[in-house]
Amino acid sequence: MEFSSKLLENAVNEVSQLPGIGKRTALRLVLHLLKQPESQTLHLVNSLQELRTEIKHCNNCHNISDVEICDICANPNRQQDIVCVVEDIRDVMAIESTAQYKGLYHVLGGKISPLDGIGPHNLTIASLVEKVKEGKIKEIIFALSSTMEGDTTNFYIYKQIENYEVKTSTIARGISVGDELEYADEVTLGRSIVNRVPFENSLKSS
Amino acid sequence: MEFSSKLLENAVNEVSQLPGIGKRTALRLVLHLLKQPESQTLHLVNSLQELRTEIKHCNNCHNISDVEICDICANPNRQQDIVCVVEDIRDVMAIESTAQYKGLYHVLGGKISPLDGIGPHNLTIASLVEKVKEGKIKEIIFALSSTMEGDTTNFYIYKQIENYEVKTSTIARGISVGDELEYADEVTLGRSIVNRVPFENSLKSS
Repeated sequence: MEFSSKLLENAVNEVSQLPGIGKRTALRLVLHLLKQPESQTLHLVNSLQELRTEIKHCNNCHNISDVEICDICANPNRQQDIVCVVEDIRDVMAIESTAQYKGLYHVLGGKISPLDGIGPHNLTIASLVEKVKEGKIKEIIFALSSTMEGDTTNFYIYKQIENYEVKTSTIARGISVGDELEYADEVTLGRSIVNRVPFENSLKSS
Repeated sequence: MEFSSKLLENAVNEVSQLPGIGKRTALRLVLHLLKQPESQTLHLVNSLQELRTEIKHCNNCHNISDVEICDICANPNRQQDIVCVVEDIRDVMAIESTAQYKGLYHVLGGKISPLDGIGPHNLTIASLVEKVKEGKIKEIIFALSSTMEGDTTNFYIYKQIENYEVKTSTIARGISVGDELEYADEVTLGRSIVNRVPFENSLKSS
């Protein structure tokens, strides 16, 4: 792509570094900004800059937060001794939107993935193990995605804490509510039969 | 969507104002920036801010440019009396990449579209007509997209300049090179037959 302006070229190059955005999309976005009032670009720019320089992570659960201890950890109505281990803030938001969980979270910041150069020390595993050692936690719920990396991470954490008195569980894998059995993959369907629940339980949670 | 941080919410809201980017994609982009070094966000932010505050439009053709007269208009090797009328800079870049055109451009900045509130006075039509009146232009090539708005804009400009001595043409509509005839729409195929070109011409341009 040949640009008539160095400023335009720079902006397109920077925007196209974002995931899933190529040069053409970047050009479209940048030209859109040029057509809008200058204030829109300035608001965008300020919000990104503030986010990047001022964002904090909760000291307890490592979730993104504006303060030292996030709203969830600071909420006295939540059960402080149940911790749900998730990959990032999107998983926290997803679980929160179900309104079914009243414990705390622990945000790992990723999964163990040697191919991407992410080892246990890149994640917040040490502080989770520390909390377990201090006896603060009664139950840990693993809620990582069930991929190779997710399972590895679950197992790594499990090995670190298996000698302490803490209950561990993983979220249930099974057929999605509303899905047809015939289209489900074998592994999911198999697990949903092995881990079947008493019929009375399914009446309660709906 | 419930956010645990006001800063994050602001950033997601601003990013999701860009065309084609919803809240979920915006969140993904913003979280990506948080994982990258701070310098990446600062580069992005600076390039957008500089672009929006310092960008100029060429005084002659209204293309985006870093200087008062863009490189194309300032190039003495280009034919100064042939002007190709296009919608925006993307069309200039597309035509430039063919390396087939050696005249100048006139960037309208849009098409006449009453439904979107865009009238002739929102575009750079007046300055194009002015150039025609001054006798600077020998030929105008209309290269707007062949939509209702594009055709309206072509016709509006044509009406303004029809009494002046200037040749007008539009780019050829026809079957794309490499396309199968059977899949072409009737209008395009019809036009390609009406506006057929001598066989010798097709040998030259390939």
